[in-house]
Amino acid sequence: MAKYTLMKTEGRAKRAQFETVHGTIQTPVFMNVGTVGAIKGAVSTMDLKDIGTQVELSNTYHLHVRTGDKLIKEFGGLHKFMVWDRPILTDSGGFQVFSLAGLRKIKEEGVYFQSHIDGHKIFMGPEESMQIQSNLGSTIAMAFDECPSSVASREYVQASVDRTTRWLERCKAEMSRLNGLPDTVNKEQLLFGINQGAIYADIRIAHADTISKLDLDGYAVGGLAVGETHEQMYHILDEVVPHLPQNKPTYLMGVGTPANILEGVARGIDFFDCVYPSRNGRHGHVYTNRGKLNLFNAKYELDPSPIEEGCQCPACQHYSRAYIRHLLKAKEMLGMRLCVLHNLYFYNHLMEEIRDALDQGNFAEYKEMRLAGFEEGKINSRYSK
Amino acid sequence: MAKYTLMKTEGRAKRAQFETVHGTIQTPVFMNVGTVGAIKGAVSTMDLKDIGTQVELSNTYHLHVRTGDKLIKEFGGLHKFMVWDRPILTDSGGFQVFSLAGLRKIKEEGVYFQSHIDGHKIFMGPEESMQIQSNLGSTIAMAFDECPSSVASREYVQASVDRTTRWLERCKAEMSRLNGLPDTVNKEQLLFGINQGAIYADIRIAHADTISKLDLDGYAVGGLAVGETHEQMYHILDEVVPHLPQNKPTYLMGVGTPANILEGVARGIDFFDCVYPSRNGRHGHVYTNRGKLNLFNAKYELDPSPIEEGCQCPACQHYSRAYIRHLLKAKEMLGMRLCVLHNLYFYNHLMEEIRDALDQGNFAEYKEMRLAGFEEGKINSRYSK
Ligand SMILES: [Zn+2]
Ligand SMILES: [Zn+2]
Repeated sequence: MAKYTLMKTEGRAKRAQFETVHGTIQTPVFMNVGTVGAIKGAVSTMDLKDIGTQVELSNTYHLHVRTGDKLIKEFGGLHKFMVWDRPILTDSGGFQVFSLAGLRKIKEEGVYFQSHIDGHKIFMGPEESMQIQSNLGSTIAMAFDECPSSVASREYVQASVDRTTRWLERCKAEMSRLNGLPDTVNKEQLLFGINQGAIYADIRIAHADTISKLDLDGYAVGGLAVGETHEQMYHILDEVVPHLPQNKPTYLMGVGTPANILEGVARGIDFFDCVYPSRNGRHGHVYTNRGKLNLFNAKYELDPSPIEEGCQCPACQHYSRAYIRHLLKAKEMLGMRLCVLHNLYFYNHLMEEIRDALDQGNFAEYKEMRLAGFEEGKINSRYSK
Repeated sequence: MAKYTLMKTEGRAKRAQFETVHGTIQTPVFMNVGTVGAIKGAVSTMDLKDIGTQVELSNTYHLHVRTGDKLIKEFGGLHKFMVWDRPILTDSGGFQVFSLAGLRKIKEEGVYFQSHIDGHKIFMGPEESMQIQSNLGSTIAMAFDECPSSVASREYVQASVDRTTRWLERCKAEMSRLNGLPDTVNKEQLLFGINQGAIYADIRIAHADTISKLDLDGYAVGGLAVGETHEQMYHILDEVVPHLPQNKPTYLMGVGTPANILEGVARGIDFFDCVYPSRNGRHGHVYTNRGKLNLFNAKYELDPSPIEEGCQCPACQHYSRAYIRHLLKAKEMLGMRLCVLHNLYFYNHLMEEIRDALDQGNFAEYKEMRLAGFEEGKINSRYSK
């Protein structure tokens, strides 16, 4: 079974390792998002190894509707299918159901909705989500939850959170059943529960206390970075993380910018994921230690320097800003690929530096130094988050 | 200066090496087409080294209208811009002018046409083509020619070929002038002339005899694979190649299928180029020793084998047909990238085997064996050329 070892703390920041059946994860960690079993931007699992990825995150809903989890199980599971022997975390599919699906109806048993591809009717509840994730055989499965809108009324949020708690109990029971079946791909699949409650700190705290008692393998804070301010998000983390077990992995879902990650680590977060580095890369927006650059900017037309001097990523080791800009303007896929590789490397490398700082006990100092650097070069930051 | 060494012959087939300022090319060779300084399908120059590419081919017209040859010269030339230290051949731009451009008018001085991007008026003649290619600094520049339609009248073709000869003399004079300028990127740029004449063997032969006297660095057969049958093409090669110098590189432009290449080698061709492997790859059509496969075919849905068993390309070393099919169906760029890498590797590897067979004096046997293999597996060949 999985084992979480807290190796060091600094304030609320945690430096830990999490041993799983697919290898040990050093935290804090940034997971690289591969929607349908591939990182958008022509990045393969071999590339992920080159850029220091520890955990790949796949989207359950997308894999369920395209190719299908049953076929992937027949193939031997997602690890074998995409050729990745390190940890995979799968989301529950809930977020996509709530954001992509057409007409949907939430009931006690689960959600009725239409496929965003062909409109056919689908039902997904806690059991279905666990079954799909079990078919994929990911290392970590996420509980099926509802993520209420950040502007939902207090009454709606309270009712939704209560249902999410009942769904979590059903997820736990179903995963336990599935892990005991003879033909299950990964019989040691782990389950992370998800804290919800929008921006109501008291609802979130009560929910955190409740789910902490379920002794799950890890806990996520969900429903943030969906429209609230950064300050509201940091406040929620300040309030809620102390109510989640310190001796379990803590995952801040869908967050965020390099600055958000530094602030999240300071508040006790172990796991992060976000589409920014790959999405921004596909649009030619690249991260540097002095903020983001927009490579479409004419001033890079003849710039022979790499995206970031000294960066060891596959793009910066060989290619200039001028050449990558040319590729982006010519709509050559290679331009996107190089930017995505750089951005993911940048995030993975940032996490490595964060872990080193925690090991050396100077994270607070490191964090201030990094934040100042990002601010200094903020000239381009209006282009994208 | 360049040096062509004919090392072995078998019938009319030639096994040679061509020493250039950017390294030695072993022939017969297949050049990999990178339209705008990048192989379509997110393939980089580092990837080209991995898959055994000897010569990269770039399109002059595309680089002229996007980013621009003057900026690339300022950057230090195309080799430095795209980070490729091996030979580059640039086409003259003529083919794109004739096929992509809108309204165009051919005069003695050159061609007036409209940019296919923004419609602005451009003039390109022999001198302009040489100047652009000199700015790019390619290893081999192609002469500016007209490629008449395969159904053009004999009178039109004769007049066109006569003008192409006059243009060739102007190309030679202009290149000689450019190579002598102090700030020229590659002062040892080579010039290949192009034989034209559509399907009129006597016009082509007279033209080949005429241009052979100009003592150029190499000679191409152009205007084939533009609609005539394979048999017509082979017949033209049988007639024309003996009228081109045997002690110079012979280049069959825009050809072709693996079978076309085997037949071309048998008729004395050294250089080939074609968009088939990359274009087919982007559509999920992949080459194998038993013909082409269409990876969209449902029968590959759970197929755990690589595209071709034993293939050492980056795709086949790791990924299954099932996974690549999934990527293609999900429209993930990675699917295209893997197929393009396999197809280019397949072509480059085929050329390596052809050279080995010529070295060992059993090319005729090898050719029959390969053609029989392609025929045997021709089930899928209706999908694409
Ligand atoms: Zn980089
Ligand atoms: Zn292969």
